Order: sequence, then C-alpha cells, then structure tokens
Amino acid sequence: MPENIFPLDSSKKFTEQEKLGHNRWHPEIPPVATVKPGDSFRVDCREWFDGAIKNDDSAQDILDAPLLTVHTLSGPFAVEGAKPGDLLIVDILDVGPIPQEEGPLAGQGWGYTGIFATRNGGGFLTEQFPDAYKAIWDFSGQVATSRHVPGVSYTGLIHPGLMGTAPSAALLAKWNQREGALIATDPDRVPPLALPPEAEHAILGGLDRGEWGRVGGEAARTAPPRENGGNQDIKNLSKGTRVFYPVFVDGANLSLGDLHFSQGDGEITFCGAIEMGGFVDLRVDLIKGGMDTYGVSENAIFIPGNVDPQYSEWIAFSGTSVTLGGEQRYLDSHLSYQRACLHAIDYLTKFGYAPEQAYLLLGSAPIEGRLSGVVDIPNSCSTVYIPTAIFDFDVRPSAAGPYQIDPGMGAPKASA
Amino acid sequence: MPENIFPLDSSKKFTEQEKLGHNRWHPEIPPVATVKPGDSFRVDCREWFDGAIKNDDSAQDILDAPLLTVHTLSGPFAVEGAKPGDLLIVDILDVGPIPQEEGPLAGQGWGYTGIFATRNGGGFLTEQFPDAYKAIWDFSGQVATSRHVPGVSYTGLIHPGLMGTAPSAALLAKWNQREGALIATDPDRVPPLALPPEAEHAILGGLDRGEWGRVGGEAARTAPPRENGGNQDIKNLSKGTRVFYPVFVDGANLSLGDLHFSQGDGEITFCGAIEMGGFVDLRVDLIKGGMDTYGVSENAIFIPGNVDPQYSEWIAFSGTSVTLGGEQRYLDSHLSYQRACLHAIDYLTKFGYAPEQAYLLLGSAPIEGRLSGVVDIPNSCSTVYIPTAIFDFDVRPSAAGPYQIDPGMGAPKASA
Amino acid sequence: MPENIFPLDSSKKFTEQEKLGHNRWHPEIPPVATVKPGDSFRVDCREWFDGAIKNDDSAQDILDAPLLTVHTLSGPFAVEGAKPGDLLIVDILDVGPIPQEEGPLAGQGWGYTGIFATRNGGGFLTEQFPDAYKAIWDFSGQVATSRHVPGVSYTGLIHPGLMGTAPSAALLAKWNQREGALIATDPDRVPPLALPPEAEHAILGGLDRGEWGRVGGEAARTAPPRENGGNQDIKNLSKGTRVFYPVFVDGANLSLGDLHFSQGDGEITFCGAIEMGGFVDLRVDLIKGGMDTYGVSENAIFIPGNVDPQYSEWIAFSGTSVTLGGEQRYLDSHLSYQRACLHAIDYLTKFGYAPEQAYLLLGSAPIEGRLSGVVDIPNSCSTVYIPTAIFDFDVRPSAAGPYQIDPGMGAPKASA
Amino acid sequence: MPENIFPLDSSKKFTEQEKLGHNRWHPEIPPVATVKPGDSFRVDCREWFDGAIKNDDSAQDILDAPLLTVHTLSGPFAVEGAKPGDLLIVDILDVGPIPQEEGPLAGQGWGYTGIFATRNGGGFLTEQFPDAYKAIWDFSGQVATSRHVPGVSYTGLIHPGLMGTAPSAALLAKWNQREGALIATDPDRVPPLALPPEAEHAILGGLDRGEWGRVGGEAARTAPPRENGGNQDIKNLSKGTRVFYPVFVDGANLSLGDLHFSQGDGEITFCGAIEMGGFVDLRVDLIKGGMDTYGVSENAIFIPGNVDPQYSEWIAFSGTSVTLGGEQRYLDSHLSYQRACLHAIDYLTKFGYAPEQAYLLLGSAPIEGRLSGVVDIPNSCSTVYIPTAIFDFDVRPSAAGPYQIDPGMGAPKASA
Repeated sequence: MPENIFPLDSSKKFTEQEKLGHNRWHPEIPPVATVKPGDSFRVDCREWFDGAIKNDDSAQDILDAPLLTVHTLSGPFAVEGAKPGDLLIVDILDVGPIPQEEGPLAGQGWGYTGIFATRNGGGFLTEQFPDAYKAIWDFSGQVATSRHVPGVSYTGLIHPGLMGTAPSAALLAKWNQREGALIATDPDRVPPLALPPEAEHAILGGLDRGEWGRVGGEAARTAPPRENGGNQDIKNLSKGTRVFYPVFVDGANLSLGDLHFSQGDGEITFCGAIEMGGFVDLRVDLIKGGMDTYGVSENAIFIPGNVDPQYSEWIAFSGTSVTLGGEQRYLDSHLSYQRACLHAIDYLTKFGYAPEQAYLLLGSAPIEGRLSGVVDIPNSCSTVYIPTAIFDFDVRPSAAGPYQIDPGMGAPKASA
Repeated sequence: MPENIFPLDSSKKFTEQEKLGHNRWHPEIPPVATVKPGDSFRVDCREWFDGAIKNDDSAQDILDAPLLTVHTLSGPFAVEGAKPGDLLIVDILDVGPIPQEEGPLAGQGWGYTGIFATRNGGGFLTEQFPDAYKAIWDFSGQVATSRHVPGVSYTGLIHPGLMGTAPSAALLAKWNQREGALIATDPDRVPPLALPPEAEHAILGGLDRGEWGRVGGEAARTAPPRENGGNQDIKNLSKGTRVFYPVFVDGANLSLGDLHFSQGDGEITFCGAIEMGGFVDLRVDLIKGGMDTYGVSENAIFIPGNVDPQYSEWIAFSGTSVTLGGEQRYLDSHLSYQRACLHAIDYLTKFGYAPEQAYLLLGSAPIEGRLSGVVDIPNSCSTVYIPTAIFDFDVRPSAAGPYQIDPGMGAPKASA
Repeated sequence: MPENIFPLDSSKKFTEQEKLGHNRWHPEIPPVATVKPGDSFRVDCREWFDGAIKNDDSAQDILDAPLLTVHTLSGPFAVEGAKPGDLLIVDILDVGPIPQEEGPLAGQGWGYTGIFATRNGGGFLTEQFPDAYKAIWDFSGQVATSRHVPGVSYTGLIHPGLMGTAPSAALLAKWNQREGALIATDPDRVPPLALPPEAEHAILGGLDRGEWGRVGGEAARTAPPRENGGNQDIKNLSKGTRVFYPVFVDGANLSLGDLHFSQGDGEITFCGAIEMGGFVDLRVDLIKGGMDTYGVSENAIFIPGNVDPQYSEWIAFSGTSVTLGGEQRYLDSHLSYQRACLHAIDYLTKFGYAPEQAYLLLGSAPIEGRLSGVVDIPNSCSTVYIPTAIFDFDVRPSAAGPYQIDPGMGAPKASA
Repeated sequence: MPENIFPLDSSKKFTEQEKLGHNRWHPEIPPVATVKPGDSFRVDCREWFDGAIKNDDSAQDILDAPLLTVHTLSGPFAVEGAKPGDLLIVDILDVGPIPQEEGPLAGQGWGYTGIFATRNGGGFLTEQFPDAYKAIWDFSGQVATSRHVPGVSYTGLIHPGLMGTAPSAALLAKWNQREGALIATDPDRVPPLALPPEAEHAILGGLDRGEWGRVGGEAARTAPPRENGGNQDIKNLSKGTRVFYPVFVDGANLSLGDLHFSQGDGEITFCGAIEMGGFVDLRVDLIKGGMDTYGVSENAIFIPGNVDPQYSEWIAFSGTSVTLGGEQRYLDSHLSYQRACLHAIDYLTKFGYAPEQAYLLLGSAPIEGRLSGVVDIPNSCSTVYIPTAIFDFDVRPSAAGPYQIDPGMGAPKASA
C-alpha cells in the first residue's frame, strides 16, 4: 500500500499543515517531495475551499465563498529524471473521501454542491439562477444522497477535478498574456471573463516567503484548465485512469486537488460536483521525449479506468444554439448545452423539483453531456443524458403523467 | 413484421419514386401516408445526396456535392388524432442499410464519409481542411471498414441523422425570422452562417405543383436541428430508442432520413458519419397534451436503446478554448471541442495516418465528444474519446513508440 | 450484402424446398453449396419443428411435438480448401427472424417457448413441471412480449442455437459408442438418457435416397452438443460473434439452424428460448492447421459480439446441491442450478406469476446462469441473474411487499 | 464513515485479538457486537488461513495448509429486532484489502492463489493437478499482477467469499444429518465428500470455554455454502451489492470473512480467488416477515453492485459432459465446466503458459462460467469466458499463430 507523502490533518487549516501545498501555478514553487518513476504514493487533498462550506441548511457560506483562495493543491511532486519534452504517466490507483473520519470538513462522510451567485463567480446558467444555493450530500459507501435534493441516489464517479504539471516560465507568460488580453476587452464584467494573478491570497508552498509577493503577482490562478492539464474537471479521471501529461519543467512537478465524489459533464453549477477532501493513490512513470513522439504538447491525454458506475438506461434532452430570447447564434455549442440543460430542468420540475434542485442534480449526478452535432449550420445540437436508475421513481414520460416527489425542505438559498 | 409504407426503388431517382418525399420543412406539405397510434411500419430512406456520391477513388463528387437538394426525406407521415400540444412517441424498432442489395447507391453494402471543401459548406475543422476528401466504407454485417482509412473497423452505431415533426406556420415564421437575422450579419460569408429558403431545388411531396414556388420560397432548409427535432445527428438515436417529439400541426407529420451507418459525436466532417440509404422500422404513439405535462416544447427528448456497440477502453484527448493562433476565448465549448479533435488528429498522425484520414476517422467512428468543463473561466474543457478496440493495432502510448500503419492509397482529395 | 445460398420458402415444408437440408449428423451428407474462405453469404433457417407449433392458446402441439424430426438444419456448406486439422472461422454477421413476413410460421413476427411434458422429452425441471405448456412471443423490432407471460418485455439476444461442422466417420463412431453405452445403462428411462440413431425420420439432404436407410441408421441425432459444436444453445453466439470450429472432414461441411430470438443460460425449458425460423449472414475463413496450433480439437471456441442487449441491474438467486427432498449431493452443479432456478420461480410467484409462467420466463429471458462455486465440498453454488429492467414493475424486494401482476390468461397447458 | 466494530491487529493471531471471531457455524455462538437496522459499520476480516501462507516462492505452505482451522470469521453481529422469518438486508458499502499496510499478512498489499494437493482437499481439476501450487499477486490500486503468472493484470472484483446468518439448532441438525449421510457413503475418500464437525480446531468466539467441546462437536464446518448463505464464493458480491439473507435465530447473527481480491466463477483452484484479509463496510436493515413474503427461505438472494470491472471482449471455451477418458455422462454440468476449463488451459499453454499457470489464472481472473445448455441430452454445455484485455498480448486466434510469453520462474510447486 502506498506511503502517504502528503498527509493532511483534518483538524488544521491548509496553511498549518506539516507540509504546505499551493494555490497558484508557478515554476518556482519548489517540490514538496520527490518520487521515482515507477513509484506509488498516497496524497491527501483538501477540499477546494479549505473548510469554508459547512454541513448545514444555509447557503450563506456559498454566497461568501472565498474564491481568491482556491484551489488548495497538494504538491508539487517532482519525478526524478523528468525533463521538458517527456510525457508524465500518472496512474490513478485509487481516490476517495477522507478515510474513516466523520466531522465538519467536507470529505468527512459528506460533500456539497453549490450554485454560485452571479456576483461571486456565477455558473453555467447564472442568468437563470443569479442567487446562491447549496446541497449537502451524505456518503454511504460509494453512494451519495441529499436531504436537499430528494428522490435520487447515485454511485460516485469519484475523481480529482484538478491535476497537472507545473508550467515553464515561458508557458506561464503565455497564459498571462492571453488571459490578460481577454480581460482587457471587458475588465469590469460580472462575473469576470478571466482571473488575473492575485498575490494577497496566494499560497506558494515551500517558496521563500520573501518571494511570495513577486511570484504571487505573476503566478496563474488555478480555475481554468490549460496546457498542463489543471482544473479540467473531467469526470472520467476516475479510479484506474492513466493520464499522460506534458512536462514543461525539470521534475515535472505534479500537483493535484479539488476532489469530487461525483460530477456530471460540465460541472455546470460551477461549485458543481460533490466537493470534498480525501486521498489519491498515484503511480508515476515517464515516456522520455514522449511529447514529440506522440504529438502531445498542449493538453493531457488519458485512458479512463474500467470501474466507473454502470448505467444502462438514460433519459436525454437536446438543445440548439438559439438563445432563450429567441436569437439565433452560429454553431454555439456552449449555448446549445445550456439549452439542453434547461430543457432537462424544465422536465424535472414537472416531477415536483424546484428548478434549483434540478440544476444541483445536473451538476452532481453522473450525467453525460455530448456535442452531438457541431456542423449543421446554424444550430449546434448538444445533448444531456441522465441515468434513469438514479431516481427512486420512474422518471420516464408516460400517459400516466409525472410522479410527484416531496421536494422536502428544498435547497438552501442565499441572495446578495 | 411492419408493412413498408414508403418503399423506394434503388434504381430510380428520389423524384421518380412511386411516393414522393420532400427536402424542405413546411406545414403545407401533405402527408404521404397516415398511421394510427400503436402502429408499426417500415419506411425506406434515400441517402441524403440521392446517389450523387460514387463508390470510387475520387473526391470530385464530394467537391461538387449538390447541397441545395438535401435532405431527401421520407414522409410526412400523419398520425391519427395527433394534435398540437401532444407528444409524439416514436420507437425506432430497427434501422439498417438497404436490405440484400449490392450496387452503386450508398446503402447498397457501402457508405461514404466526406470532408466538404470550404467553398461548399466546409465543416468543423474547415480552416485546417479547406479541400474535399472522401472515404468509402464497406459493410460486413454491422461492421465497417475502408480502403481509404486502413487499420480500423467499427461496429455500426446505425441511426437516422434526421427525424422530426412538421413545424406550424408560426414556428416556421420564427425560424425564418431568426435565421434571416443571423445571415444578415454577414450575408456573403463563405461558408454561410445559415441557409435561407430556396425554391428552385425544393421538393415538396404531394403538394400541388402550382404551390411549389410560394411554399418553396418560405419552407425551411433541412440542414439544422430545430424545435421539431430535425437534423439532430445524434448518434445515439439507434435501434431500440424511444423519442418524444413535440407536435405542432394536426397529425404531427413525421418525416425522416439521412441514415448513418456510424457516426461520432458532432459528425465533425459535416458530410460526416457513414452516409447511406436504408430502412427504418418505427412504431408511433401519442401522449395527449404531453408537451405541457412534461415541459417539452422546443426539442425532442429520448431514451436511447440498449444494443449500442459496447467498448470498454477509450483513449481520450482534451482541448480548451484557446485558438490555434493562441488567442484566449471565453468559455467557447465549440472551440475547445475543435482543439480536442485536433489533438486527436495530431496524435493519430504519429501512427502514420494522414491528417485527413484521422479527421475522416473521427467523423465516422463511434467517438464520444463531451462537454467536460463549461464553467472554469475562461477555458471550456471538451474531451473526445476514441474506442481503442476499433484499431487493428495498439493505439495506446508506450515507451516503445507508436506502431506505424501502412496508410495505403490514402483518402481521395479534390481541390477547387 | 451477402447472397442467399440457402433460401427457404415459408409456405412450403422443409422437405419441399428447392434445396434440401438435413436433421442428422453424418459425414456422407453431401454439401448443398460450396463457398470460399473470405466469402459472406446468407442462409435461411427453418424453426426446429418445421411449423408444427402454432400461434394459438393451446399447448397440445407442444405435447405432441415431433421430436424425431429435429433439427431441420440448413447445410452442409463446404468451404474450399478446408482440411481436417484446420480451424474454421465463422463470423455471425447478422441473424434475425424471417424478414418482412407475417404468418403462421414461427419466425414470421412471432416465436414460442415450450415446456415439454416428461413423457415427451421433459426439461430441466421436469419433476416439478411434468406437463406441457406454451408461451407465444410477439416481436416488435428486437423486443419480445407475450400474452402468456405478462409484465415483461426483453430485447432479443438473437442467436443460432445450433451450428457445427460435420463429424468424420471415426468421430461419429465414437459418439454412437459412448452414447449407446449410456443408454444401455437404463434403456427404458423416461425421458431417455440419450437419443440413438433413428432412420425413419432422418432427412439427409442430397444424399442418394438409396443410402438413407443405412446412413440414417448410423447418423447422429442433433439434440446434444458435441466435439463439432452442434446444439450448444449458447445464448452468446449473437450478432458479431466469431466462432472457431474444428474441421473433421474435407470442406468442413458447416450446418446450422435452431434460431432463437432470446434465451437464458441453460435454455432450461428444453423447448426453451424463443424458437423461430429466420436468417443468418455468415462469413467463413480458415486457420490452416489451427486445431493443433491452438489446441482446439474437441469443441468450438468463440469471441462473442459487442452488440448484446445491455442491462445494468440484476436480481440473483443461488442454489446448492441439496435435493428438494433434502438429500445432500456431492458438488452437483446441475442440481445447484436447478435449485437456483426453483428459488427464482418461488420468488416470482409471489408477484402473481403462475409457476409455469415463471419457468417459461427463465427459459426465454436473457438470464445469466453461473457456476459460482464448484469446490466447496459438498455443495456446489450456482446462481441465476435476471435483469430487473425486463419487468414492467419493480421486482426488487422491499418493505412494501411484492407488486401484484395480472397473470392474464396464463400459459396454455396440455396434459398427457 | 462507518465505525469499525470488529478491528483486527495485523501483527496478532486471530485468537489473540481484542474481539474473538469464530470458524464454525452454531446458534450458540454469542454475538460479538449488536447493531441496529439502518446502521453502517466496518468489520475487519482475517485471511482464511490466518497468515499461514507466505509471500514467497515456495508452495510448501499450500501443501501443508491447515484446513481444519478455516474460516476465520468476523462476527457474529446481532441486528436488533431481527426474528426468524425476517429477511436481513446487507448492503456491501465497500470492501478492500487491509488499508495502508505492507507486510507479511495476505491483504497487506498482496494476496495468493493456491492449487491444493489431492491429499489436502484437492480442487476442481485435482485429477489433472494432484500437486500443490501457489501464485502470489501484488496489488496496485485495484489491479493485481503476479510474478508467478506473467503476462496478465486484472482489475479486482473484490468481494467477501463468505457471509451468512447463524443457523437455528434445527437447521444445524439438518446439515449434520444430510452431510453425515453423504460421508457415510464413502467415508475414506480422498479428498473427502464432506467435512464433519471437528472440535479440536474449533474457535467459537465468546462462547463459554467450558462449552467449546460440546458445541464444537456439533458445529458445522464453514467450507460449504448452505441455506444461510455462507461460503458461497459468488464473485459478484462486490461493492454496492445488496444481499437478502433468511433469518433463522433472534438477532440474525451475521458473520463474514474469506475476502477475495479477485476470483473467477467457480473459484476453481479451491484456494482459488486471490485470498486476502481486509475490511468490509456494511449497512444492515430488515424486511419483517420477508422470508414468507418473498419466498426466500433456503438461500440468499442479491442485487449486484454497479461498479464491477468492465470488459467488453471475451474469448470463450465450451465443454460437454464427456469425461477425459471418453465416457458419456448424463447432463453433468459440473463435468462440462471442468471440460470447458481444461479446454481453456490447453489453449493458454499454446501461448507458453505452464498448465498450472493457466489453471491459477482461471481461478483468480474475473472469468465468467456459464451453464449454457442443461437440457440437450445427454450433453450439458458449459462455457467459460476470459476477458481478452487482461492479457498484455493478443490472445485471440489468428493465422499468425500464438504469441509466446516468457513464463518466468513459473508457479512454485510442492509434492507430497
């Protein structure tokens, strides 16, 4: 069984741990540990808000969620012999919530899904859902249920939302240039177009404290996925998956975090998924010079594991790239997926769900979101598939009409 | 076994058949046949170009493909008692190529995938692939192979690319208004932003010929999916699928066509999929008033069948919403899927495929295209999954480096 | 599309067809057609009783079923160049009921499952079910339902129950010797231990009529599976399957028949499965000398196809090798499977099924029957798995107790 | 996260633990703990030989395996309110090897598969394999590999081999009667027909020591599965499975053990599976009076979980009920499965495996063993399916002939 090379104490804050992680991308953050090709090891991961979200029936914590502090990453872990141009093989041997603990920290037997308020980051459907909502999920084995979203239980598709290698200085500069240029097109937008470097809340691991101001001022925020992998939020990076990351710095410097107990394609509620802390068991190896050999230079490639939850029946909804207001957009797959998700929400409300309950469900359940048609001008066609077996009742359309659930207390809400 | 209510003679043109279909959407096109709720029936379908594409080694026919004539639809089929506001249940009992025929018409034991030239419609990656290409696929049972794309064979995920109910006059007017407004923003664009009504090549079934000019001048083109379903190109509408369409006119007036032997999510090469003619066995039923009861008013919903080809290992590629030129776009899932597909193409070329072979493969193989992350500003993350078992060789990365295929004659090309 | 080299006219008896098949195994039955390695071809198959079983509500025809005449096989088909010692590759490209026909012959849109009376062959649970019963199944696309077994519908796992190569004279002699020896241990048993050669009802294809007496007197009955494959009744020999048969005579001389629309592991009702006539599309090839190269000399090996119906939830029952009377047997997996099936039947009767309805269901539904434990002396443990999705109601145990179906008219019964 | 109510210290023997389990079935063994309906809890389990088998390259320990001491069970656990006639619901929330430990005890990062010598219990193919063999498997996440069986790696189908409720006195008496009667038919057989009570090595938990002699003399051995579940060795009792056990005594008194990292249908090598110690997380509930309500009185029924390893391609072998010596047996499914397994072994040896390596592979890999035909007199047809993806090489037959592995050191052997 792999040795834990990054243990976390659930009773202490992220910054008070024996080994300090980081919440920004920068090549100068030194490795917190070094492993060899072929090594297996365990890493604990803190939930992305470091305990700010509580297991209660209020969404005030979601409304006030400290976005500047995320993500609390474990790492970097250097791999001996890794050089720029290599491919780093990462096998996800296991991943799960915090073992054998109950308590107030997400991952201690429970997790949460949030809808962010528009003024605090928003989400995929923020125009329709401008306020903050929260759902708490209880874990029982690999199954999650919620007092805030009744009538469903799903088998967790557990995965790290964020994993990646350190950028080189040149790559970091490229990120800052292009994202800065985007922000500059509408710098006051709410929510913003992108997140610029921010030094005040930066945590930079073992970097000399005297450098935190300079490095924090240029280090990349961890929200978006980029060439190094990063916050890809790919629900399929589950147990048994092999990922191949490009290496940009000596040692590769792998970091990871943002564990999810379950998530649908898109992580559409933003603080979507079922967020939690926990552990990941990894094994690393190298393909020397693999970036050029396999043409992999800008993004991770991966082979998903073979123990994902199996569902064999799905109810699916489609959407096209016409806005809710009726405006025709040109092959906008982002819009067509929004419309597909809204169609699913409309449908679920007929069974008694509040719209925000349906939205929280789509963010956390193992839904499939597919780019079904991307060439039939002017309409993209996106589709979203919900496994029917996650419902306690028959969710299929019939002449008998929809079953009516008891929506219970509903999902807690907080408005600005 | 269901009666064939729309037989087609493979030796005759679409317009010379005993029963005439149509290639435009309009409420005034009269039903070609009427069925009852609960009825099962067979419908033959012509391949979408009505035989213009040949089983040969030239792409000239793809370059000259007659886009104004598509799609050659079977129908409309009226359902007794269907009224606006109902949901039309359509069970796809079976679907396949033209039974027991060999010959020059796509569907007679073979099909084709095309990459359209930019000047003739283009496709998902038209900037990278401005010329026309073609691949011919031979069918053996439910398996397709191609002399133009060696080293792969896939089990067909056979489905109708296009199926839908007739629009009401009001709905049609809405389409023309919104698509016209889009076209007006850049009327001379190549390829165009959308396709306006076009009367000259319109085929309008049993409508009185004296009306063809007027109706053809306002009837909607069949390329895009819309509220009535239509050309959704959803690969999962396979055998055993139940679809629920909104009903907009008395009788529902269902039409269908554009059969595909196989297709990946997105149908990315435009004349993607493996195009063919063939048959579909359907059973229809009604949920009276179902549009309101289930909140389904703008798009089809569906429950996919349970006999799709099973693959258990996939190699996956991700992409973000940064252009090839390095520009950062804001949560553009269309772009991120393009980048994921380009990453897959780059990878496959390392095994000896020409880029256009890899592109044709992605358009026709049962790939999964997922909207993995849609909220992590500013980068969407899209992912594309290719089943490893479709390759005759080991397509996974390893220290040994990529196997080298014999690319054979390659995919025929035609330039403007 | 493959040429039909063995067409059958549904309106004529098996013996009145243009090409005559056979119902016994013997090396001297001449090939009815010859194909080349690599060839694809279609073969029509007659249902195993040649139309004796009717689509009605009486089981008299099952009680009187003419067992001496089975199976009405299509073939033999010789493969050019095949020699003893080769492996014959048979790809099942497609298989289905009689295309586009409705009528009185099983396979024309319907099929049947029968429980044989003890005095006419019996079945797996003949001690508990000594009388004859019948269930008629209607096909709708790939789905079967029955007026005699309400509350279930299943997607067909369509396959040929019987396929095999011709025995050599030596192999045939071995069969006759060993089966004769078994019969001799209890020659008057009802049902019999095995079936000796029987010349009167033998049909021997194109063999000179003058030889039918001699050859029929030594030709093997087709009921059991043997070294040549034969009546294996393996439900997984479905579309897309590749089978490898040992070759015992020049030309291999492949024959096939006994098509099933669906069947559970064991085909437990004997005239189990959903019996029908139909077609099979095959492609053949050879591995020269493959019997020795791969150590395959006594039985077929195979790679099942990848389009079998997918179910993801099952309810399972176990049984051990203790008789109903309480006697302990030593590792008797046949008995433990009987007990598992009886447990499943007991369970289903609690939902309102008659025992014979439950038995007919188990024989025809795509159940899994597994040898779970074969070493834990003295009890074997066999298990049977029923997909829960085949039921219209929730078949799982709960505190609410079992749902009660309307058993309808029940399954027709006939007693001796 | 569930509380551990039966912790085991890996450095101490089973009999030296804080809480003492048992290795016999008897109603008088008192509960070691009591839980409530709805409770979740963790239970540690000792590997079945309590550490007698070593992680080395000798099979002497297998030859000398102390069969009289097995199985070292955890429990009994009483459930409040459980009464005879109820059904006990047991949800397997999680199951795995000993967390985060490396060491000399099976389950500490490794496990073993053994072939027992005929004189020490034998196994399914003991006539062909009369000597003792061993294979050690190393765990990496959910994947197992072996230095003794090269060329394969499989994803663990982790499950408890043994779980069951306590028998009533009447049920125990029935067991002793019927098994004693069987033994009496051939009391000196090697291996024996069944295992009679044996007091000397009995461990009886918290039962007063003064009673151990009497109770041990009548308590049932744990090797066979029986009406209470017990040593069913059903590979599908994996994570997420819900089992329903009949209740025979107040409190139900559930016990469990014999964890397996992986196993094929049949556990054919006897000490088959990959044996290990570890943990199980359970949740229990009751269906009052459920035995009668659902007709479940003699065996467990269950609904398998949905996270089993997924494989989509299998190579399959068939066997009939003819002995290796050529004798025809009547519908003997046990024999036909033996023959199917021997055919698989013959095949694998052509790739360079020693027969015992192939046998060990079949015992431990997630193979499917099916009762394909049980009515076609006189031959049963059993089939065994091996997932092709577990092999590092292409295991399918082809004209190129079999790949040749390096068999390595081979499997350690020990002869009497």
